[in-house]
Amino acid sequence: MPTLIAGNAVIGQSGGPTAVINQSLVGVVEKLRELGACRPGAPISQILGMRHGVRGLTKGEFIDLGALTRETLEALSITPSAALGSTRDKPDAAYCQRILEACRNHNVRYFFYIGGNDSSDTCRIVNELARKAGYELRCFHIPKTVDNDLLVNDHTPGFPSAARFVAKACMADFLDNISLPGIKINIIMGRHAGFLTAASALARRADREQGSTDGPQLIYLPEVPFDIERFVHDVASVYDRKGRCHIAVSEGIQDKDHVAIGAKLIKGAQTDAHGNVQLSGSGALGDQLADLLKEKLTPAGGKPPRVRADTFGYVQRCFPDASPVDQREARRAGHFAAEVACRGDLDGSIAIIRTSTPGPWENYSVEYRRIELADVAAKTRHLPAEFTSGHNNVSQVFLDYCRPLVGDLPRFERLGGV
Amino acid sequence: MPTLIAGNAVIGQSGGPTAVINQSLVGVVEKLRELGACRPGAPISQILGMRHGVRGLTKGEFIDLGALTRETLEALSITPSAALGSTRDKPDAAYCQRILEACRNHNVRYFFYIGGNDSSDTCRIVNELARKAGYELRCFHIPKTVDNDLLVNDHTPGFPSAARFVAKACMADFLDNISLPGIKINIIMGRHAGFLTAASALARRADREQGSTDGPQLIYLPEVPFDIERFVHDVASVYDRKGRCHIAVSEGIQDKDHVAIGAKLIKGAQTDAHGNVQLSGSGALGDQLADLLKEKLTPAGGKPPRVRADTFGYVQRCFPDASPVDQREARRAGHFAAEVACRGDLDGSIAIIRTSTPGPWENYSVEYRRIELADVAAKTRHLPAEFTSGHNNVSQVFLDYCRPLVGDLPRFERLGGV
Repeated sequence: MPTLIAGNAVIGQSGGPTAVINQSLVGVVEKLRELGACRPGAPISQILGMRHGVRGLTKGEFIDLGALTRETLEALSITPSAALGSTRDKPDAAYCQRILEACRNHNVRYFFYIGGNDSSDTCRIVNELARKAGYELRCFHIPKTVDNDLLVNDHTPGFPSAARFVAKACMADFLDNISLPGIKINIIMGRHAGFLTAASALARRADREQGSTDGPQLIYLPEVPFDIERFVHDVASVYDRKGRCHIAVSEGIQDKDHVAIGAKLIKGAQTDAHGNVQLSGSGALGDQLADLLKEKLTPAGGKPPRVRADTFGYVQRCFPDASPVDQREARRAGHFAAEVACRGDLDGSIAIIRTSTPGPWENYSVEYRRIELADVAAKTRHLPAEFTSGHNNVSQVFLDYCRPLVGDLPRFERLGGV
Repeated sequence: MPTLIAGNAVIGQSGGPTAVINQSLVGVVEKLRELGACRPGAPISQILGMRHGVRGLTKGEFIDLGALTRETLEALSITPSAALGSTRDKPDAAYCQRILEACRNHNVRYFFYIGGNDSSDTCRIVNELARKAGYELRCFHIPKTVDNDLLVNDHTPGFPSAARFVAKACMADFLDNISLPGIKINIIMGRHAGFLTAASALARRADREQGSTDGPQLIYLPEVPFDIERFVHDVASVYDRKGRCHIAVSEGIQDKDHVAIGAKLIKGAQTDAHGNVQLSGSGALGDQLADLLKEKLTPAGGKPPRVRADTFGYVQRCFPDASPVDQREARRAGHFAAEVACRGDLDGSIAIIRTSTPGPWENYSVEYRRIELADVAAKTRHLPAEFTSGHNNVSQVFLDYCRPLVGDLPRFERLGGV
């Protein structure tokens, strides 16, 4: 074991918050303390939280995490959203240089950043700058994103809880739709990756095989080019047969030229530092699709069908009903990062790798691995082709993949013929 | 006790579904059976469920509820949405005459209808027609509405569970808002009554007194005329002070002439048989308010603030996380209706009356009363003035009223200074 270099640890949270990002925060803090941090004479003397990520770090705005009681840590761990505050800043080389300066000024030697692919890229750049400058700095990225779009990982903390919300909301909303029939569109998060929208398929009754008539009957993902005419035809076909139709649509659906359809519809859409155009926080996409269906599916001389659109919005990433699997894994990812950091000679990103094969979901298991920052930094994983089925459905392979992640789902009863 | 007239019972569900409307359905069925229904020679020989309310009744579309197993009933009771199917039909006198004919044809002598103020009016009209025709028919209305807008009742089944969802969603979304600061608008259901939007105030930390800085900081209700300029001023004032603002807005906010602001914004808004213009199932109101704030709060030569709007939508009325108080009361309201019906000489609506005074919410208690159908039929209760505070807040009286209804809420931890 190399000798640990003496200095402070910092932890930050970045990007969109999730229901379990604080589990990873608490995981790092409790493992570092377990390994000796903050005791007199220990190599790691302080554990500092960056307020609002690297923005707070460069301003010297910290919270003393090493001083928190076990009770506070446990309460924090089940609190949704990013307790340290988050940021959408995407540091360029000059900004990363300021981050490195801040680390030097505060004698930071252990840098933990919890976030998505942009955050892992920040980690990677800071890591390289430190190496070039001959400043010893252990850099660790801990995965987090409801979009589930990090490479190498089987899945990422935050996704299972968001998928749980989507599945439960769609279960109930489908029952609402059969109770008062009509066409119902639900817009679900996912800028480039369709994992979360695909999770709506878990709402179909577990005791019915795929291809059943349970909703959502139609699922539209960013990975499959969205064609307006085909969409109208799909909906008409279900509606004509059943007198109702339940539809899940990703906010990130794209036309064949990869232009996001939603981004064109939001008036004054705002763009973040990463160049991402706002897709969430607006009902425009759902409303536009609803208008389209009202117009196209009105019979000659007749009344338009009942069409409603809901956009699940921010509540899907932070609703206080986290998946127990997700809570455990997010915490453990934090532990694992702290353990590797305390070996003293490695940097990297923590990846969750599934070790079980599809089957009864009680047998589900994973392991944690250190991978290189460059393996995930600034790259986007998409829904693999084997997870989709046709142009408007997911496959059984996806259902087997996703089911173990979300925890127990309620089982509802239905009366025949309603 | 009068002798019970021999015949069948029918039960229907009407209007927007809720998370607990099936509890009331199961309550009626199990109490009627407990009191002897469906046994050989019993006065009540069959318990029939109307498919899609009075629409199914007039078509003779029934489900045999008396034949359901206890296991099925229990599973149904925790299933959100209306298991029999619901309807938005608003019967006029001719339609009510057809309802009465259907009752005669199927030897129906006990008529139970679970719904809101429009449904109680259907009950009332059918009851009067039967009386005039000399056809003995016991008519009972069982309250149900997430809007909480029935007269006489302290509150109505369905509201506590919807209020629970709103409170939990706002708790998490407020933490999201302080994590990534900006202006966040949440649009909440409630056509004419602001109870559900008011429940967003339960999201403020229970351990802080009212007037604290927890979100939502601003609450707009249909009962208080909405003034655009004052709204912009309110938001600017909070935003300037905190750099963020969390806002709850009722879908039913009205201008000083009582015109619903949302109804003017939904393109091709649909109107139901009750003359209600569509307010839900569209993000138009939230999007419009967000656009307005972006425009008005952009500093000269500067960037607009980050503004996002979510519309909670249908999930708030059926999310599978019912308030335990609500489940119990909805079931008991069904029991009570069946009990009164089996006295043989009364009709009416069941009302929930609170018998506890404000105080520790563990002491909360209610009783059930039979009231006249005319007392609730087609009337709307509004948020009383004592429940509001100023033009953009609720009072402590409201919080004391609402808190016992929603069950346990999670307690979250926050780090100072974030």
